[in-house]
Amino acid sequence: MSDLLITNIRPMAGPLTCMLIRGGRIAAIGTDLVATDDMRPLDGASRIAIPGLVEAHTHLDKNLIGMGWYCNEVGPRLIDKIDNERAERKRQNIDPARQSARQIAQSVAYGTTHIRSHVDVDTEIGIGGIIGVMASRAALADHVDIDIVAFPQSGLMIRPGTEALLEEALREGAEVVGGLDPCGIDRDPKGHLDVVFGLAEKHGRPVDIHLHEPGEMGAFSTELIIERTRALSMQGRVVISHAFCLGSPDLALVDPLIAALAEAGIAIMTTGPASRPAPPVQKLRAAGVVVCSGSDGIRDTWGPYGNGDMLERAMFVGLRNNLRRDDELAAALDICTHGGAAIMGFTEYGLSVGNHADMVMLEAETLAEAIAARPRDRLVLKRGKVAAQGGVASFTVP
Amino acid sequence: MSDLLITNIRPMAGPLTCMLIRGGRIAAIGTDLVATDDMRPLDGASRIAIPGLVEAHTHLDKNLIGMGWYCNEVGPRLIDKIDNERAERKRQNIDPARQSARQIAQSVAYGTTHIRSHVDVDTEIGIGGIIGVMASRAALADHVDIDIVAFPQSGLMIRPGTEALLEEALREGAEVVGGLDPCGIDRDPKGHLDVVFGLAEKHGRPVDIHLHEPGEMGAFSTELIIERTRALSMQGRVVISHAFCLGSPDLALVDPLIAALAEAGIAIMTTGPASRPAPPVQKLRAAGVVVCSGSDGIRDTWGPYGNGDMLERAMFVGLRNNLRRDDELAAALDICTHGGAAIMGFTEYGLSVGNHADMVMLEAETLAEAIAARPRDRLVLKRGKVAAQGGVASFTVP
Repeated sequence: MSDLLITNIRPMAGPLTCMLIRGGRIAAIGTDLVATDDMRPLDGASRIAIPGLVEAHTHLDKNLIGMGWYCNEVGPRLIDKIDNERAERKRQNIDPARQSARQIAQSVAYGTTHIRSHVDVDTEIGIGGIIGVMASRAALADHVDIDIVAFPQSGLMIRPGTEALLEEALREGAEVVGGLDPCGIDRDPKGHLDVVFGLAEKHGRPVDIHLHEPGEMGAFSTELIIERTRALSMQGRVVISHAFCLGSPDLALVDPLIAALAEAGIAIMTTGPASRPAPPVQKLRAAGVVVCSGSDGIRDTWGPYGNGDMLERAMFVGLRNNLRRDDELAAALDICTHGGAAIMGFTEYGLSVGNHADMVMLEAETLAEAIAARPRDRLVLKRGKVAAQGGVASFTVP
Repeated sequence: MSDLLITNIRPMAGPLTCMLIRGGRIAAIGTDLVATDDMRPLDGASRIAIPGLVEAHTHLDKNLIGMGWYCNEVGPRLIDKIDNERAERKRQNIDPARQSARQIAQSVAYGTTHIRSHVDVDTEIGIGGIIGVMASRAALADHVDIDIVAFPQSGLMIRPGTEALLEEALREGAEVVGGLDPCGIDRDPKGHLDVVFGLAEKHGRPVDIHLHEPGEMGAFSTELIIERTRALSMQGRVVISHAFCLGSPDLALVDPLIAALAEAGIAIMTTGPASRPAPPVQKLRAAGVVVCSGSDGIRDTWGPYGNGDMLERAMFVGLRNNLRRDDELAAALDICTHGGAAIMGFTEYGLSVGNHADMVMLEAETLAEAIAARPRDRLVLKRGKVAAQGGVASFTVP
């Protein structure tokens, strides 16, 4: 692959400069870069460049993209949605390989270059979802990096046999041990977390736990997670996803938790949920906690919303946290880029010389405008190659 | 104007049918309509048709569209934003006529056919904002219906001279008497509301009051508004905008208020705010309260968000109220269409024979998909004429 010289580009909405891409990496940045015959030129046309967007929490295996509209008549409880989904998976033949490929294409079109996907593991589908998403990951490896969480969506202790399936998933290629509401769903917080962290220790894997539990119950589960993270010296390798309990108005409950999370090196993933208590992202970051974000499920049996656009997600995080100032919106973008890269351990990420050339170019005056306006026309590079432009991925999927 | 026959169209996402538009109104709907030589044909191409979107609460006079990015470094309090805005209005020459025309064009491009705009009236700008927005209203009267609220943004009792200006605004052409946080900003709830309702009584006008006050304070102001609405027999002519107090978790406070609002015929406007307590739209509607929605300020000195798209707003209302089922999303659309039309008194509105042909055609399988996907390509008719298509208004503005 020949070198690529991008001129008239504004990294992070800064001054106009040039960027040299060589071997899939950012080889140089500067106004003094000169084109030579062996370089392909690309006029940035004064667009801004931001690092590739990072989808740090989604469910690639169970969207319904391209399957016709799903008329949602599901009941109001969490368990209604979980049970309904397992039934619909069979009824509609929601194929994890096909659907993950479709969502990946859509996400990449919006500028996502890295994805963490939780993938259901249960005693009905077994590790079929994991195998399906791994197939899409292999097929689309040039266009996106994906890491996979083995996720016991239907429960772990309440569904015997799931532990063995999680272990099988880890052996087959899932990187991360998942978990779900140790009290609220699994009814056995010690049992649940001992299995999750036991698998993490045995296989040397990170952990990412869905925690929807509110208030005091969620705080209790968070404490148990902190205790195990410390005991196993897993600082920097544990994420709590959703963490609604951190949105409690009871600061006597929340503030000590935040301090303990920072000390234990546990990261927080938030979607910026409008209808639930939400972790206060600025307070968490100020305390030193890594914060990342994700779309969660998009267009699935749980709900109709979501499109995989992590710039729109940055807007949701901004709206939920009442971020209005330009510096605050830049923080929302950081959450949807560097925050996600950090939890996945991508160290060669970001618009600095030497890093992978994973980036998005788009028309906006400032980073805040990129989030507020969410321009649809984005040029997406993955390791220096065009992965999408004009809202369309450069590859086709089933 | 010749008749227009729209074929292959799905009103409210129902079965395919035809619609005859004559004299700017829906003259007939049915599969048996036959084209004659004097009709212009329009193939609906299986798109759905919904009534024109209704922007029931915005601030046309003070957006910054087309003025370059405003770097927001404003303080956190409500009064910081109010004071900063007055200062910026002068510094940047935010022209109400020019800016309202720009926002109108953007809103119409997204499918809005009716707008209620609050317009600042204060002792600095006087009624200059009202005059400016009225000029745009007159210039663009073929493309959108607008009603104007004379809005004491900087306070009424705390800013002597404002009452006389509000009265002047009503005489010049504003239709509605506005108000703002009788306790929180104006520090004199009885004084404030007596002036607002006094003007309403004297001039026979409706009322639309901004009420950001939370919890018990907001409930108190709401009670005072209910008392005056009853005393003046203004049922059906009063709107409380924002009404954060109705989002209090204290149902012993909220439930009696909702019953009283229903009995007094007072409507509620909510933007579906992610970071504030929000009125529960489904509970309000079940109680018989009319609920409408709006963008509030877009792209202004208050904050960077918003684009005037009332389908996106329906999504925000849905996300804030955790609406997931298809019937719930249809309710969100009703809020962003019929709800707004009701508070503005547009009785010849909606996709029924005899009503104005104000409608949006777009590609979606269901109403829920229209909200979740928010397709950008919309054909917008205002009284039977094309007001916008493909995301672009059919008229130009400064």
